[in-house]
Amino acid sequence: MALIVQKYGGTSVGTVERIEKVAERVMRWRAAGHDIVVVTSAMSGETNRLLGMAKGIDANATPRELDMLAATGEQVTIALLAIALQKRGQEARSYTGGQVRILTDDAHTKARIREIDTQRIRDDLRAGRVVVVAGFQGVDDDGNITTLGRGGSDTSGVALAAALKADECQIYTDVDGVYTTDPRVEPKARRLDKITFEEMLEMASLGSKVLQIRSVEFAGKYNVPLRVLSSFDEGAFEDHPGTLITYEENGMEEALISGIAFNRDEAQLTIKGVPDAPGVAYRILGPIADANIEVDMIVQNIGADGTTDMTFTVHRNDYSKAMDVLEGVAKDVGARQVAGLANIVKVSVVGVGMRSHAGIASTMFAALAREGINIHMISTSEIKISVVLDEKYLELAVRTLHEAFGLDKAA
Amino acid sequence: MALIVQKYGGTSVGTVERIEKVAERVMRWRAAGHDIVVVTSAMSGETNRLLGMAKGIDANATPRELDMLAATGEQVTIALLAIALQKRGQEARSYTGGQVRILTDDAHTKARIREIDTQRIRDDLRAGRVVVVAGFQGVDDDGNITTLGRGGSDTSGVALAAALKADECQIYTDVDGVYTTDPRVEPKARRLDKITFEEMLEMASLGSKVLQIRSVEFAGKYNVPLRVLSSFDEGAFEDHPGTLITYEENGMEEALISGIAFNRDEAQLTIKGVPDAPGVAYRILGPIADANIEVDMIVQNIGADGTTDMTFTVHRNDYSKAMDVLEGVAKDVGARQVAGLANIVKVSVVGVGMRSHAGIASTMFAALAREGINIHMISTSEIKISVVLDEKYLELAVRTLHEAFGLDKAA
Repeated sequence: MALIVQKYGGTSVGTVERIEKVAERVMRWRAAGHDIVVVTSAMSGETNRLLGMAKGIDANATPRELDMLAATGEQVTIALLAIALQKRGQEARSYTGGQVRILTDDAHTKARIREIDTQRIRDDLRAGRVVVVAGFQGVDDDGNITTLGRGGSDTSGVALAAALKADECQIYTDVDGVYTTDPRVEPKARRLDKITFEEMLEMASLGSKVLQIRSVEFAGKYNVPLRVLSSFDEGAFEDHPGTLITYEENGMEEALISGIAFNRDEAQLTIKGVPDAPGVAYRILGPIADANIEVDMIVQNIGADGTTDMTFTVHRNDYSKAMDVLEGVAKDVGARQVAGLANIVKVSVVGVGMRSHAGIASTMFAALAREGINIHMISTSEIKISVVLDEKYLELAVRTLHEAFGLDKAA
Repeated sequence: MALIVQKYGGTSVGTVERIEKVAERVMRWRAAGHDIVVVTSAMSGETNRLLGMAKGIDANATPRELDMLAATGEQVTIALLAIALQKRGQEARSYTGGQVRILTDDAHTKARIREIDTQRIRDDLRAGRVVVVAGFQGVDDDGNITTLGRGGSDTSGVALAAALKADECQIYTDVDGVYTTDPRVEPKARRLDKITFEEMLEMASLGSKVLQIRSVEFAGKYNVPLRVLSSFDEGAFEDHPGTLITYEENGMEEALISGIAFNRDEAQLTIKGVPDAPGVAYRILGPIADANIEVDMIVQNIGADGTTDMTFTVHRNDYSKAMDVLEGVAKDVGARQVAGLANIVKVSVVGVGMRSHAGIASTMFAALAREGINIHMISTSEIKISVVLDEKYLELAVRTLHEAFGLDKAA
C-alpha cells in the first residue's frame, strides 16, 4: 500500500465524461489498496474562456483579480470529480488551494509555493477518503487567492507529493510518457521507461512539453519520484507504466543518450567586432532583457584583434524587435556589424551518460556532416549538446541523430 | 456621504457588457461621495450550467461538493466587476464569502449566516476602495464553502449591510420596484415608493418574486433600509427611486392596502368528516410533510356532528401525489370523504393599514361578489386577507380588487 498523488491535466478532465473516466481510474488504484490524493487542472479551454472575459473588459486587468477569476476553473473540476467518486461509493472531499493552505508568496499569476499544511489531507486519508485538491492555486499570507502560472498544476501535484512524502507523483496527461524524441518527427521514437530529473529538465526546456519545468525542478529538489502516464489509456500503469523520472541509478549509466530534443521557431542574432572589455556582455544583453525579450543560447568567441563576436538565439516572434535593439547597442558599444538568421532551429542530444563518456560530440557532428547539415552554433552543458541549424534540416537532423545514438533500440 | 451596499442579481451581471454597466453605476455613486460595497450573484444561467454538470454525473451529488461547485459562479463575477472598476480608475478588491468571513452553519446548499467579520471591508473602504463581495456563499467553522440557497445573494447583501451598519441596502434587479400588483395582470398597477417589511414579506411569499423572503426578514430584524431598483434603468435612484422597504412610519398609515398579491398554480385538497379528536391535524398533515409536499394555506372548520373538515392548498405539481397520500390518511383516521380542486389560485390583499381599519374584508368580498366570483376558501392574518378562487377568475379578481382599494391612484 502506497500513498500516490495523481495529477490530471486539462484534457484529462475536459468533459464530464472524461472526469468520470478519471474517477474510474482512481477507483482501480483504491481497489489495489493505495491512498490517493488527486490534483486537477481546469477543464481544457476553461482558463482561456475566463481570462478572455477579463481581457474583454481590460487588457491590463490586475493580477489579483485575474487569479480570483482563474482559480474558479480548478474549483469546478475538483467538485465534479469528488461527486463522480462519491457516486462510485468512494468517500471523497475536494479542497481549494486555500483550504489545504497551499501557502504562496503574493506574486499573483506566478506565485511560488512556500509551504503546505497537510494535516487536513492526512486526516481525510486516514478516514479512507480520496482527497481532491485544486491545482494551480494557493493563498498568500493575507488569504488572497494566488495562482502559480500556466502549467502550475504540475507544480501543485509535486509540491503536495513532497509535503506528504508520497511514494510517487503520477502526472496523467495526453501522452503516454517521455519519448526519445518527438514521434511526429521520428516515427521510430521510443518511450523511455526511466529518465533522470536532470535529463528531463533538459528535454522539457528544449521543447518536449510534457511536464512543466518548475515541477521537475521541484520533484528533483525534494526527490519525489515522478511518473508521466496517459490518462487516455485505460491500461496506463498496469499495462503501460509510462516514464518514471527519478535520480540516476547505476543501471541507468548504460544509456549514453536519453533523447533528442529540439526547439522550432528560433532566430539567431550576431554582433561582430565588439571591443573586448569587461561588462560588454551586459551592455549587449541588458537592453535585450529590458525589451522583455527572452534569450535562449548565448555563445561568445574571442577574436584575434582584441574584439569579440557574440551570438544568441531568441524566439522568432522577437526577432525583428531584437534586431532593432541590437543595432542601437552596436552603435553604443562600437561594434563592427550586426547579422541575423530568422529561420533556425535548435537540436540537442541529452543524456546523463555523456558525463562519463567521451566521443558524444564527435559522433553527433560526424552524423550531421554525413548528411551535409551545416551547424551555425554549438553550445554544451554537462548532459547535453545543442546545435543550431537551418530550419529546413530539423527533421533530417533529428532522425539522423536518433539513429546515430541507437535510440530506436531498447536500452 | 453614506455607506451603501448594492446587490446585483444574475441578469444585472449576465454579460461582460452588463458588468461594465454595473461598474459605471458604481462610479456614479462614488462620484457622489458614497462608500460602496457591492454584492453580486453569478452571471445568469451560470449556476444552472454548473449544477447541470454535477447532475449529469450524479443526481444525488453531495451538498458539500455542490456548494464547492456553485460558489465559483459568484467568484467569476466579483473578479470581472473589480477589473471593470479598476479600468475606470477606481481602486477595488473582490472577496469570496470565505475571505470576508461570512461565517455560516454547515447546512450545505441552504446555510444560514451566523456572523460576518467586517474588519477587512472597513479597512478597504477607509482606503477609498470599492469592495466587491461574492453573494450566496460563506464558510462554515471548518472552512468548508457553503451556499445560502437560491436567491441567497439578497441575503448576503442585507447581512453585509446589517454587519456594516450601512445606511441603505440597494437591491438592483430586473424590475424597477415593488408594484401594487403584477402589471402583466393589471396594467394600472402602480410602483410603491414605500412598503413596510411586513407587507413586503406577505407580498413576496404570495408571489411577487422581487426579493428573497429571507433577505426581507433579515432586513426587518436588523432594521436595514432596503431599496429595490432596476439595474436596467440608467436613471435608477436619481430619477426613479425604486421602492424603499422600511419600518412603518406615521405617514404610511393612510394607505389601507399596499397591494394585491397572488399565487398561480395551486391546488386545493379537502378531507371531510374527520372524527374531531386531539392530534388529528397532525395525523393528516404529518404524512403530507413526510412526502416532501409543502402545504400553503390550511383551514379547518368544526362540523356539527363531532367531525371536522380540513382543507389545504399545495403546489399544483404536488396535487396527485398529495391526493394519493390523503386517501391513505382518510382510511387511517376514519374520514368520510376526500375531495380536491386542481385548478385554483390564491389572491390576497396586503396592507399594514388594515390592522386599524375595519371593513377591509367586507369591501373585498363585496367587490368579488359583484363580479360573480365564487370564493372557495378564506384565510386571514393581521395584515392580509387571502381567498382561493377558480383559476379562470385570477385576472378579473386582481383587477377588481386593485380598483376597489383605489391602488391605481397615488396615495
